[in-house]
Amino acid sequence: MTFDLDRFRIAPGVPVTLAGRATDDTQGMDKNEAKALTVEAIAEVDALQERLYAEGKQSLLVVLQAMDGAGKDSTLRSVFGPLDPQGVRVAAFKAPTEIEKRHDFLWRVHQQAPAAGELVVFNRSHYEDVLIVRVHGLAPADAIERRYDYIRSFERLLAEGRTRVVKIMLHVSKAYQLTRMRKRLEDPTKHWKFNPGDLDERKRWDDYMQAFDVALGETSTEAAPWYVVPSEKRWFRDLAVARLLAETLGEMDPQYPAPTYDPAAVSLEGA
Amino acid sequence: MTFDLDRFRIAPGVPVTLAGRATDDTQGMDKNEAKALTVEAIAEVDALQERLYAEGKQSLLVVLQAMDGAGKDSTLRSVFGPLDPQGVRVAAFKAPTEIEKRHDFLWRVHQQAPAAGELVVFNRSHYEDVLIVRVHGLAPADAIERRYDYIRSFERLLAEGRTRVVKIMLHVSKAYQLTRMRKRLEDPTKHWKFNPGDLDERKRWDDYMQAFDVALGETSTEAAPWYVVPSEKRWFRDLAVARLLAETLGEMDPQYPAPTYDPAAVSLEGA
Repeated sequence: MTFDLDRFRIAPGVPVTLAGRATDDTQGMDKNEAKALTVEAIAEVDALQERLYAEGKQSLLVVLQAMDGAGKDSTLRSVFGPLDPQGVRVAAFKAPTEIEKRHDFLWRVHQQAPAAGELVVFNRSHYEDVLIVRVHGLAPADAIERRYDYIRSFERLLAEGRTRVVKIMLHVSKAYQLTRMRKRLEDPTKHWKFNPGDLDERKRWDDYMQAFDVALGETSTEAAPWYVVPSEKRWFRDLAVARLLAETLGEMDPQYPAPTYDPAAVSLEGA
Repeated sequence: MTFDLDRFRIAPGVPVTLAGRATDDTQGMDKNEAKALTVEAIAEVDALQERLYAEGKQSLLVVLQAMDGAGKDSTLRSVFGPLDPQGVRVAAFKAPTEIEKRHDFLWRVHQQAPAAGELVVFNRSHYEDVLIVRVHGLAPADAIERRYDYIRSFERLLAEGRTRVVKIMLHVSKAYQLTRMRKRLEDPTKHWKFNPGDLDERKRWDDYMQAFDVALGETSTEAAPWYVVPSEKRWFRDLAVARLLAETLGEMDPQYPAPTYDPAAVSLEGA
């Protein structure tokens, strides 16, 4: 069974309807097969990330967005966890602080953009400013409309600086979210991950889906594409995210830098 | 065979002589035994780190110092690599930038101090300012002397804010460094890790050891102890570092926070 990543890519300029996209697709794969392929993919990513870091010229930014309970945290743990913590960094964006609120919406994310050689994951991102902000009307409608353009420009700027940007939406159904919430409430070690306000957000599910439709449609570009990953089967989700990293890094093709000295001429005699 | 961590701890106020400390001690353990214990220790650390993150009240700062080739990078990869990248962060300090040079020596490290809930590793640190700076006389001698006191005060400040500070010196011999340098020169995928200037530093080996002796003696405190870990057997080094983390986090004893709501009262009916 071959894994087909392209199926999850959002083509630029085409309207998006998340409601029409599967949340539990596994491309006919079974769990064991997917797990074996995931181990392979992560090993590939691990080797490529070391070269990315050594090369120090390009970088990779992965934006992770999803509804509550869709599995952002477990994706970070299973796919990014096994990588070298040196050169791999997670930047989490929560509700903006008082200081952050005094700046434009790209100010805090720009600061966390990857340096050359780095692989950075945004756990939530500037997309919250066109998702939760849109759903709750936290900014004027016309200001939100202008943000898509600022986002495209910002991501193009990163791309021009040799940062590859890939954006992932972990896609689950409303029913699936309920099963996750129930698990959180039943497990005392998971209580801290739940708060009653999550239920209010859940009531706006359809509004969120619509905000995602618009955001994905407006900002999936050649330079910074969106991928909608069916995430109800975690083993399939891990495979999809790991393959996306492997293929993206593979295209970037980082190289160990040529030494700036002649290794053959270095003498360790008497050193 | 029981692993004894205390043997590597530098007692406060006692003069240090690294020359008298083993670089290849394994406490009589064999490789397989140590590897099995390391897997256990890392699982322990992993579970405790999740609680640290969930609790969000305490933090852990691990300072990693060593001579070139002693294995800082591979320690990061083997011991910290398996942990959840969310809540675990590596801050690397290289030669200071022009902007950093315009500030006091603690300015850049203070910015990277862990937030509540975080585990942060410093790959090199403010200790370079009493190591390489001392060896090369890059600051006036009396200014360097005063730095030990500033360091103690800074680390006490962190401790008072519920940041545990543990400092690790990966200890190897001068002969061992030569074997690592040779490997780097023989392996094209390692050429980027070597530069000919490393040989000049190597010539100052004894000066570095003396600078370490002073720094460790001056700054190993109850609040922020130094551990000198024999690092020539990497499997033993990994065990020692993993046990140090497990025991430190175990003493910190982070707890899942009590929910601020009543989980039993949350109804998911009709949600």
